[in-house]
Parts: sequence; C-alpha cells; structure tokens
Amino acid sequence: MQEKLNRRQFVKSGAAAGVALAMAPNILRGKDDRKVRLGFIGVGSQGTGLLRMCLTMDDVEVPAVCDIDQEALLRAVDLVEKSGRKKPTGYGNGEEDYKNLVVRDDLDGVFIATPWLWHTPMSVAAMRAGKYCAPEVWGASSIEECWELIDASEETGMPCMMLENHCYDRSNMAALKMVRAGLFGEITHTECGYRHDLRTYKFKPGVEFGPGAQGEARWRTKHSIKRNGDLYPTHGLGPIANCLDDNRGNRMVSLTSTASKARSLHEHIVRTAGEDHPNAKIKWNLGDIVITVIKCQRGETITIFHDTNSPRPYSNNYVVQGTKGLWMEHRDLTNAIYIEGKSPAHKWEKMEDYLPEWEHPLWAKFINEGVRGGHGGAGFLKSRAFVECVKRKIPTPIDVYDTAAWIVVTPLSEQSIATGSAPVEFPDFTRGRWMTNKPIFGLTGEY
Amino acid sequence: MQEKLNRRQFVKSGAAAGVALAMAPNILRGKDDRKVRLGFIGVGSQGTGLLRMCLTMDDVEVPAVCDIDQEALLRAVDLVEKSGRKKPTGYGNGEEDYKNLVVRDDLDGVFIATPWLWHTPMSVAAMRAGKYCAPEVWGASSIEECWELIDASEETGMPCMMLENHCYDRSNMAALKMVRAGLFGEITHTECGYRHDLRTYKFKPGVEFGPGAQGEARWRTKHSIKRNGDLYPTHGLGPIANCLDDNRGNRMVSLTSTASKARSLHEHIVRTAGEDHPNAKIKWNLGDIVITVIKCQRGETITIFHDTNSPRPYSNNYVVQGTKGLWMEHRDLTNAIYIEGKSPAHKWEKMEDYLPEWEHPLWAKFINEGVRGGHGGAGFLKSRAFVECVKRKIPTPIDVYDTAAWIVVTPLSEQSIATGSAPVEFPDFTRGRWMTNKPIFGLTGEY
Repeated sequence: MQEKLNRRQFVKSGAAAGVALAMAPNILRGKDDRKVRLGFIGVGSQGTGLLRMCLTMDDVEVPAVCDIDQEALLRAVDLVEKSGRKKPTGYGNGEEDYKNLVVRDDLDGVFIATPWLWHTPMSVAAMRAGKYCAPEVWGASSIEECWELIDASEETGMPCMMLENHCYDRSNMAALKMVRAGLFGEITHTECGYRHDLRTYKFKPGVEFGPGAQGEARWRTKHSIKRNGDLYPTHGLGPIANCLDDNRGNRMVSLTSTASKARSLHEHIVRTAGEDHPNAKIKWNLGDIVITVIKCQRGETITIFHDTNSPRPYSNNYVVQGTKGLWMEHRDLTNAIYIEGKSPAHKWEKMEDYLPEWEHPLWAKFINEGVRGGHGGAGFLKSRAFVECVKRKIPTPIDVYDTAAWIVVTPLSEQSIATGSAPVEFPDFTRGRWMTNKPIFGLTGEY
Repeated sequence: MQEKLNRRQFVKSGAAAGVALAMAPNILRGKDDRKVRLGFIGVGSQGTGLLRMCLTMDDVEVPAVCDIDQEALLRAVDLVEKSGRKKPTGYGNGEEDYKNLVVRDDLDGVFIATPWLWHTPMSVAAMRAGKYCAPEVWGASSIEECWELIDASEETGMPCMMLENHCYDRSNMAALKMVRAGLFGEITHTECGYRHDLRTYKFKPGVEFGPGAQGEARWRTKHSIKRNGDLYPTHGLGPIANCLDDNRGNRMVSLTSTASKARSLHEHIVRTAGEDHPNAKIKWNLGDIVITVIKCQRGETITIFHDTNSPRPYSNNYVVQGTKGLWMEHRDLTNAIYIEGKSPAHKWEKMEDYLPEWEHPLWAKFINEGVRGGHGGAGFLKSRAFVECVKRKIPTPIDVYDTAAWIVVTPLSEQSIATGSAPVEFPDFTRGRWMTNKPIFGLTGEY
C-alpha cells in the first residue's frame, strides 16, 4: 500500500500537477507502447460488457477477474483466455475476495461493476492498494461514503473515475463544446434526468426480485423498497455538471427534492402476476417520479428527474439554456437547438444540423476511426478514457470530486424528501479548491 | 349591491347548488334567447381582442367600456357602435372610474383586462356590485389578495372566472379526457410552464419601459425588477390543475421554488442599446428561469417552469404522466404520447393520431362549427364559456377557487425563493370543501 501523503503536500504536488498535465495535453502526444494491466471486479452483465470492450484494446492486459457468481467468473476467465491473453486469476472465494485482487503487484487499475453498496469499499480498497479505480455508475448511500472516496484518493494520490457514459454521448460532448465557445451565451439553467422504465430490470423473471432472482433484480430492487430519493442521478447530472464547470469555478450549493406517490411498481406486479402474488403486498417507498432542483454557486439552476418505475420511452431530458439560446434533447423524440441570431426567430432547429460545425474532437476522431462499443459508442469512450489515463499515469477526466459531488445527490435528495422538501446544502468535497481548479473533462481529442 | 349572505348559507345554497347544476348539464339544454350584457374594463391590446371576439356573438350586448387611455377607449366605443350595437358608455375619467361601470344596472358581467395589480380590486368591485367577473390571466401579489377574491365571491354568490385560455387548448382538453378515462392510469406526475420570450413585450419601443413606453412594457416590466418568483404560473398550471382534480378531491399542499440568476434582460438591453443606455444600469431581480415544484394532497407532483427573459421558442412544457403512460408537448416541436399496451414498446406516438378517438366534445363541436378566435381557438372558447354561464346564471367552469389557487403560486414562490427554496404551504381556499367538491371543468360539449 502506498505511503500516506500529507494532504497539503498532495494538493500541492499530485492534484495540482495532475491538473497542469491535463491542461497541457500536447506534451503527452508521444507514442506510448506500454500495456495497461487491469483487474475486473464484478463481471455480471455490465462488467462483462466492460471486459469485452477492453479485450478489443491491444494495450490492455487482464491479469485478474473477480465475481462471487462462479458462472460469471468462469465466463470472464474464459473470455480473457479466448482473446489470446494469458489466463487470468479468478477471485470468487466469497464477498471479501476482491481484497486479494486489488493488492496484486501486476495491476495498474480496476474496473468495478458490482451492486451499488460495494462501489465505495471496493474503490477505497483499490486506491489504498495504489490502483486507479473506475467504479460503474451509482448513487451514494450516505454523505460519509463520499468522504471515504475523497479521503482515499487524496491520501493515496490515486484517481477514482466513475464510468459515467453519458458524459461521452455525442450530443452531450457537442453541447459542451458549444457551451465553452459561448454559443448559448451565459448559462443560466439546465435540466436532465434518468427517465428509464426499469420494471423489467427490477423484476426478473416475472415479478421476482431478491437473491433468487436474475440480474440486477437480485440487488437493485430493494433500494426502491427502502429508499425515497434520486437513486441514480448521474446519467443526467454528469454531462450537465461538465457544462457548468462544477468543482472548477462553480459548485452545487443546495438542493430540494420532491417525490410523487409510489404506484407503478405495485400496479406492475398486480397486472403481471395478480393481486394474490406475495409481492403485491409490498409497500414501495420510492416515489414514481422524484424531482430535484439544484442551485449553483454562480447562480445556475439544475432540475433533475428520476423516473424509473413508470411505463415510458427512455429520456435523459437534457436542457442547457443560456442568455443566447438553448439545447433540448429527449432521445428518439427530439434533439433541438435554438440560437438567437442564427436560428429563424423563435423556431427550433435540429441539433444534427449543428454537428458538422460543433462536433467534439473526441467524437470527430471516433467517427473517423469507427464508432464501436455499447451505448452508441459512449461506453467505449468512457472505458478508453480510463485506459488512456492509467497508461499515462495522469489524472482521469472524471475525478473523485466529480464522482463524490454527483453521487451525493442521492442521500441529499433522500434527506430533503424526508423533511418535506426542505433545502439541503452540498458538502464541498474540494475544500474550497473549486475556486481555483480548472476544467478537466473533454479538453482534447485524445481521451 | 347584493345583500351579504351568511357564508354557511351560501355554501349550502349557492355553491353547492351551482356544482349540482354543473354536474347535470342536460337540464340546461333548452334554447335560450336571452342577451348577455357585458362591460369591458381595460381595452388595450388584450381587452380589445376580447371585445372583438364577443362582438362576433349575437347574444352579447356591450353597454359599457372602460379605459384610462382615451385612444383605446374611443377605439372600443367605435368598435361596438360599428358592430351595429348601441353606442356604449365610455368610462375613462381616471383610475377609479371603473367603479361607476360595475354598478350599472344593465350589466350581467364584466371582462377585466388591465395591469395585474388591478385585477383583484376590479373583480371584487364587480362581484360586490352583483356582477359575474372574468379577469384576464395574472399572478397574485399576495396571499391576502386571493382571500379578497374568495370572500367577495362567497359573500355575494357571484362567480369569478380567470380567463385561462390554455385550459381550452385542443391538446389539453383531449389530455383531460384521457386522464378522466384512465388512459394514463393513475396520474403521478405532471410538468408545465410558461416559456415565452417576452423581451419584446417587456421593452417597447427599443429597450424602453414604464409610463412612457408602449403596450405591456408600460406596467409589466417593473415586476421583473421588483420581484423574483413565478410571476405568471397559470398558463401552465391551469390545464394541469384540471387534470389533477385540484380543489375537487385533491389540492395543492406545498411548493418549493428556485430561481436561476438574472442575466438575459440586462444582456438584451446592452446588445440592443449599448452599455451606456441608462436601462443597462438596472438590477433585475427576476431570475431568468424559476422552477417551482408542487406536492398535491393525493401525492402527485407538479413542476412549473417560468422562463420569460431568455431567447427561445414558445413552450408550455406540458407533461401528464401516470402508471400506464404519459403525454408530452413542446409547442411547434413535439406533441407525443406513450400508452403501455397500445404504443409499440417504449416508442413515442403522435398525439394527433389519438385525437380522432380522444377529441374533447367541446372541441369536436367547435371544429364542426368552425374554429375561430385567437390562441388557436382557445381564446374564443374561454370567452364563450363565460358568456354561456352568465346567460344561464350558473357557476363558471373555472371558479374563484381555481383562480385563487392558481394565482397564489406567485406570492408563495416569491416567499420560497426569498427563504432559500424553503417549502411553503398552500392556503386551502375551499376551507375543506375540496374533499367533497366535484370537478366542474370540461364536463360537456356546451361550454
């Protein structure tokens, strides 16, 4: 395990130097033939997707994989071996066996795709073992959990990059480029959300969930029974936070959250399996729709919708609005832009008509090289960004402060709802450094 | 002036009987040849529009008009006379001359289209003079103002119908029919707003406003300097409140409001007239976007956006969502619906494809007879509904409780913003009768 650094020392050296590197990408452009050695903790559906993607990368080695599910573990071992790589060590000896993976000397970083409650202990263990860590998307259980991530990263100098794929969506990166160029003027307001009918994820097969069920229904569903808040804020919030320079010249100051009644999961059970099914007796705590409104230090507002129980088409509900125009996207329905002086007066235009001029360099390169991977390519880009940073030993473009600030929305929203939508303050995980920190995401076409 | 009724007596007789009548429209269907005698207070742009529309109705007489602007007053007198009606009496002798209009014996009701601060005193004066009153759309200045309307209506038995045209929009009435038929299942969440670039209304000509300016810029703009809240909630909220049985089995219980920074009006002035224009020194209080989240007694949520300073296409941002599907409209961009079991899985359909089956009977009749009037026909329908009710001496389909509950959002949102988005309780203007009152809006094809 790395020696614990004095925090002030780290801030001066590690973090500050990291930012400096990220701001000066040209010095990093030399060809780098090093391999990146990655471990995978959690190789269920999501983790196997990550693994398959990384196995398409010639510079990635996979010395170790971990899962408590033997079938999943063997599949992962097999996938690595069949890719022509050395057979990886499998860790599947109980829930704590990941600790044996993270301390290996032949790993540079780990991907973590496990149930939400494991993300922080595994990330912390990885960082304290001197590894880069890339946990999949989640919402925190508590504010303290977020501080554990911050402390581990600051004390070890190891980055923690939540794998928020939507930060890498094509439209979102183009919108970010537009924001930075001032196309929308000064940004005043944003909207976003996770509006995804998860009923067939929360119940599988039929209306079953819990240990005997399948996939995420084994662990995800109980959060909808126990909790009422925005359980999954970052698919919406991540890209928006980038547009708002969150933690870098700006920060989220306070929020209020309000939850609708909880009806749709119960109705789904009754309609699918009848009133007499034992699950029809469950009292669901999670409101069908949870609305969170955030106020930022610079005065912008963010409205986040969490909407995972109801029948509906998918949407991340993106809006970025400023003093000169706005962008609005509802996936598969509309992706529209209005810019004063460019668009016909008060008429929407198509975002796609703006892409030739506003394509983000990362996406321009990606299209040129061939878009691949899940989530329309964003899944590849997020994984590749992590790999590039591990390889170069530089800070990740989504860092531990982003991770903490985005996932803390979950416990803060629970607290607000539990107190009748009372406003709740955000912790400042940067301890004031948001005032001087510079943006780190999407600065180049490299990662 | 009518004798003051004992409130308990009124509740038993007037209001209750009125609801009973509204619930049994068949008894009212006999041909009625009576004329309706209406006064018009305020005949600027909006009031003249109302007047022109009513002059197309053969059963409307206009014995009196009122405006402090002599030019507007003479134009109105002239319009009435040229329509073949008797020349009306003009009231233009100062700001209090409307009081001489409302006490005339030859009037059944008055339309009020004056600056917002006059709506309540004029409505109260009209009701206390035994007249039906129909104030144009506004937001209240205080909670007390709303109680003045309630007291005047309850004590006189006279209805007060805010002329919320969007309640009569074609899509909104179809959506209401769908809600009542259970097409969306149990309603859990709604969204709405007033997203209208008003910069050319707030400034006219150029960047001018105040007494020497033109149109609404004479009086509306100062609200954006003095106030920070949802100044104009009802274009969004009215139709949504109808879908939620507000005041009739349900009520709005509490809200939080959050305002973005105020930038766009200042930028507009600087871009249009330069930094040296005296209006460039004004400090605007109204946030460019104000978000209000309401929780209802039955557990539904309502999100309202107020967005009148920024360059953008118009939208009322309607969403009505339930346990079986949802409807979403952004005018000129998308008007979409998704119904589980009817729509292809997780695919939006067009609202217009649902209209043949779900057209509201009022709109079916309107289309059959020929759509006319402003705001796509809704302006005609709202005025006609008032005329029909005055003629029949029955309660109006938007009543004083609707009016008060919708406009009170303005001072409540100001209070929430002034206290850091703290939750604020709604007054119960029905004094508990929301528990037994029945819906009154859009029950028939008549009005």
